[in-house]
Amino acid sequence: MLSSPRNPLNIGAAARAMSNFGFSSLRLVNPYQVAFREARSAVRAGHLLEAAQEYKTVAEAVADCTLVVGTTAAARRELQHPVRRLEYGGRLIRKRLASEPVALLFGSEKFGLSIEELAHCHWLLRIPTREAHDSMNLGQAVAVCLYELVRDPKAALARPERKKRAASASLEAATTLLLEVLQRSGYIHARVEASAEMKIRRLVRRMDLSAHDAEIWLGILRQILWKTGAQPE
Amino acid sequence: MLSSPRNPLNIGAAARAMSNFGFSSLRLVNPYQVAFREARSAVRAGHLLEAAQEYKTVAEAVADCTLVVGTTAAARRELQHPVRRLEYGGRLIRKRLASEPVALLFGSEKFGLSIEELAHCHWLLRIPTREAHDSMNLGQAVAVCLYELVRDPKAALARPERKKRAASASLEAATTLLLEVLQRSGYIHARVEASAEMKIRRLVRRMDLSAHDAEIWLGILRQILWKTGAQPE
Repeated sequence: MLSSPRNPLNIGAAARAMSNFGFSSLRLVNPYQVAFREARSAVRAGHLLEAAQEYKTVAEAVADCTLVVGTTAAARRELQHPVRRLEYGGRLIRKRLASEPVALLFGSEKFGLSIEELAHCHWLLRIPTREAHDSMNLGQAVAVCLYELVRDPKAALARPERKKRAASASLEAATTLLLEVLQRSGYIHARVEASAEMKIRRLVRRMDLSAHDAEIWLGILRQILWKTGAQPE
Repeated sequence: MLSSPRNPLNIGAAARAMSNFGFSSLRLVNPYQVAFREARSAVRAGHLLEAAQEYKTVAEAVADCTLVVGTTAAARRELQHPVRRLEYGGRLIRKRLASEPVALLFGSEKFGLSIEELAHCHWLLRIPTREAHDSMNLGQAVAVCLYELVRDPKAALARPERKKRAASASLEAATTLLLEVLQRSGYIHARVEASAEMKIRRLVRRMDLSAHDAEIWLGILRQILWKTGAQPE
């Protein structure tokens, strides 16, 4: 929910971030009257701008919401509102979002939310910017807040790495080839000691090879072996 | 580090986000030749744009970095790079940033990072956008990534709420006044039962008053009491 946004590019950018992160209901309070619905910055989020609802006042815009969270750059201690950092406040919003309509309210680019608008908020959210430069671009602030709402450390950890690891058989094949190459090249003795063999085995494991890279390494080692030629035992 | 950025507004927005989150070294690879150093979008981050270093190639730009992380919208399975979600990848970057120069590389607005540029990366970072709309605005993507790097859930929790809670003495004073008001108004019997008193006591606690609001309520209740006047016992 944007209150009194002036720059249509920012409205479009907010719509784009909403689409990126899977949010769909954009409400605008008293937008500066320009053709914001055609903002070019709403790349692939034009439908969101089309569907954006306009209101005259914050009170009307938040009427059906059970939680209204204002955003603020500064700490604004003078207000009798709890101010929560995004990391923590985001969690509270996420919980409520699961069952109820929540409004996340952004003020105008120049002045932020007015005292009157803030009075409609249950509490305030602060992005942890530097105190020396705490005023963010509106579109970027929307993107950061929505990212925090969809953020999911568990999914990030549970997601298997896209890099498919090499199976031990490939690593062992590479180890065998490498040992032979090292023997032939005279890097290690022709009759390999067990300790040297283990050192090489661990060396190969530390390469942390993907399945694809293991194949490449096997090809390289075979090529070197071929080049160094069969030697008399 | 931005590679082949075309829109100076995006370069300025990236600089602004860097300043917001406390990052200072902006490097540009082959920026589209317009006067990006004057980009108006770099609100209060003009010094960052002024100091931005230009390079011809990614290789030169990342030369002194010990970790190079590329950013990508799509999963890009075809590449032999691990792709990590921002929640997890951000943690890895944060650790390395403590001691070493790390490059976070963003591609051009239109094409992202090329295969050649990606080859300079140790791994890739993916912002958890919807698959159906994964392409973010450059300035917003920079802001979201940098936010993740400064994100600090512990600080968020440790930070005392700015709303100073009311002490029990104030709550009890409010309870006493409220009880008297309720008696006088006939809401409860003149001789208050213990159970009714406790109900009212709990009611006041559930208001979850701030110190400031408690003062206001005390004032209101005193006023009501004064209005209802002393009654004969």
